[in-house]
Amino acid sequence: MNLKQFLKRQWADAYLMHANSTHNSDMYYATRFLAGDAFTYLNSGQEVMMVSSMEKGRAKKESRVVDVRSSSDYGLKEESKAHKDGGEAYCRVLARLLKNVGCRKVAVPRDFPVFFADCLQQAGLQVTCVKSPIMKKREKKTAPEIQAITTAQRACEQAVAGAIEVIRKAEVVNDELIVNGKPLTSEYMRALIHHSLLDAGCEAEGTIVACGPRSADPHWQGQGVLMADQPIVLDLFPRHATKRYYCDMSRTVVRGEPDPRIVDMHQAVLSAQETAFDLIGPGVNGSEVHQAVCDTITDAGFHVGDEEGFIHSTGHGVGLDVHERPGLGLQDVSLEVGNVVTVEPGLYYRDVGGVRVEDLVVVTASGCKNLTIFDKNLRIK
Amino acid sequence: MNLKQFLKRQWADAYLMHANSTHNSDMYYATRFLAGDAFTYLNSGQEVMMVSSMEKGRAKKESRVVDVRSSSDYGLKEESKAHKDGGEAYCRVLARLLKNVGCRKVAVPRDFPVFFADCLQQAGLQVTCVKSPIMKKREKKTAPEIQAITTAQRACEQAVAGAIEVIRKAEVVNDELIVNGKPLTSEYMRALIHHSLLDAGCEAEGTIVACGPRSADPHWQGQGVLMADQPIVLDLFPRHATKRYYCDMSRTVVRGEPDPRIVDMHQAVLSAQETAFDLIGPGVNGSEVHQAVCDTITDAGFHVGDEEGFIHSTGHGVGLDVHERPGLGLQDVSLEVGNVVTVEPGLYYRDVGGVRVEDLVVVTASGCKNLTIFDKNLRIK
Repeated sequence: MNLKQFLKRQWADAYLMHANSTHNSDMYYATRFLAGDAFTYLNSGQEVMMVSSMEKGRAKKESRVVDVRSSSDYGLKEESKAHKDGGEAYCRVLARLLKNVGCRKVAVPRDFPVFFADCLQQAGLQVTCVKSPIMKKREKKTAPEIQAITTAQRACEQAVAGAIEVIRKAEVVNDELIVNGKPLTSEYMRALIHHSLLDAGCEAEGTIVACGPRSADPHWQGQGVLMADQPIVLDLFPRHATKRYYCDMSRTVVRGEPDPRIVDMHQAVLSAQETAFDLIGPGVNGSEVHQAVCDTITDAGFHVGDEEGFIHSTGHGVGLDVHERPGLGLQDVSLEVGNVVTVEPGLYYRDVGGVRVEDLVVVTASGCKNLTIFDKNLRIK
Repeated sequence: MNLKQFLKRQWADAYLMHANSTHNSDMYYATRFLAGDAFTYLNSGQEVMMVSSMEKGRAKKESRVVDVRSSSDYGLKEESKAHKDGGEAYCRVLARLLKNVGCRKVAVPRDFPVFFADCLQQAGLQVTCVKSPIMKKREKKTAPEIQAITTAQRACEQAVAGAIEVIRKAEVVNDELIVNGKPLTSEYMRALIHHSLLDAGCEAEGTIVACGPRSADPHWQGQGVLMADQPIVLDLFPRHATKRYYCDMSRTVVRGEPDPRIVDMHQAVLSAQETAFDLIGPGVNGSEVHQAVCDTITDAGFHVGDEEGFIHSTGHGVGLDVHERPGLGLQDVSLEVGNVVTVEPGLYYRDVGGVRVEDLVVVTASGCKNLTIFDKNLRIK
């Protein structure tokens, strides 16, 4: 279904977004114009962008949208002087743009700001909230998008390899990992990883280097000294700095001798991954994949839980957002060729810590292809 | 005015937000809990946070909000299985939470998702859109916040110093800057700056290293070889990686002999900055500062325009967001002690390029204090 059909079904004249494109990936996908300040995108079959006059020159050069207009053309400066309230000033400008292009009924995405929806309605426009057709389109990756994700993934693997090499070479003194006479910390490893990613043209934040029992919180970033014989969860989700596509990868490693529970957890997680790889393919329900992963975990003697055990979904889509649709979780969703999803079962227990192994796969006509080519050894030898 | 008084004036029982805290700084400010996935914050005088069950353990340890609840406690898993639509499932959970805490009328910020506002109204709740009281509070920085911004600012200055040193040491061959036999590019400089920031505990994206006439687009990031005798606009806005406060700084430099127009533009921009520094203080209207800056620019023989000349506002607030309130622009806004704002007049002409000089100041009882301590020399000697 193209956008025109979509709009017709919603009885709308146009699809409207207002957001910045550094945080809102639908905006970036629609315009390929990167801006930290919010701007407006309108598609009534013909696309129009409205940016500040300062950004007009750049938008004309960089955006894929040809019809770039300036908010000054619709009186923003006058409205800003007249109204103390910047939001109200912009809303008047927005209403003027919509009237100018002959639009009376707009469809907006779910995350459209309620303030602008109210304002536009007060200005006599009809506003309907819809599920983003752009987000839907983003689920199916094209070959260049898969290439961009793969480029980021290779940079990510190189950074993980560098990190593991440092852990391998560390000395062990009183159970602590020591490098050049200094304790090896999560913070140091995170910086090391980020430098490596930067050299490969990627940027990252929030990289997880979590060691010991506290790694039982799946999203704990980690801090302090890395310990021998303890699980170290490495979870990286960098983005290619210019292409802006993410990848996502986790490995769990132990320097020294892991607790036997950790060994069993790691084995269960690897088996659960294989279950998912075998199942994933076009037409398959994501929630069935998740259920099968849960069953494998349970069969291995662990449990699916709320606060311990397997406590999250099996995976999520990855693209311009690090978490996007489709998910492999409780919700029904039919997988399609071109979906890129993580497969990341994990087990978490407060006494021993967490184990997570995460690969990135693309759904293909015959099943799925793993975009991750990095080993999954628990023990660093 | 505290939040209870605020709610009373809005006839609301509670203030409600639903967003992630990596992008939504109000969420981070209110909770000090950093999460990439959206969660819920509710304040009815007592604060409640609702996160996924997976995040509950971490939220209890990391958030400043004590009452942390899990969406599983309100039936998210059952709703997710029952509804194909994740948004609708979450909305039922949200309505249940609100009823549980005895809330019938909620105030939400302007950027609250229209979908959830509609859903909650359909569930019988009254939803009122208000100007964020948290954003208002964020405008006045505390001493630790100013310290965090200053820490980032020093890291930023160190990175600029490193960048300028590379430009200084470059050879000039056929008007191109050459380092180690290779052309010195915007991309290389950006990476160099980002490595330096990373070493100082900061992270950055979108750093501008823009050379030549195209720097007339103020937000062009820059690409390709840096040239002698041309303006190079350096604009950095890194964030401290753990404290999460931004700073912001621009300098314009020329290796070699600048065009006389560029010299005059630079002089006008410096004078405009001084005009602003002299005026800024508590009780002063931001739009008056902007007007005085515009007058200085005009008096210097340049013009205030839409697409060339001085084409943006004088400055903006900086904190957990790189662009926040208060602004120094067309809109009336009364400056207060603790506001941290940029002062960044710029001049842009398509034939010669752009010149921008940007400092960061904090409003004090007696005027303002410049948080930037870096020289403003145009010529690199």
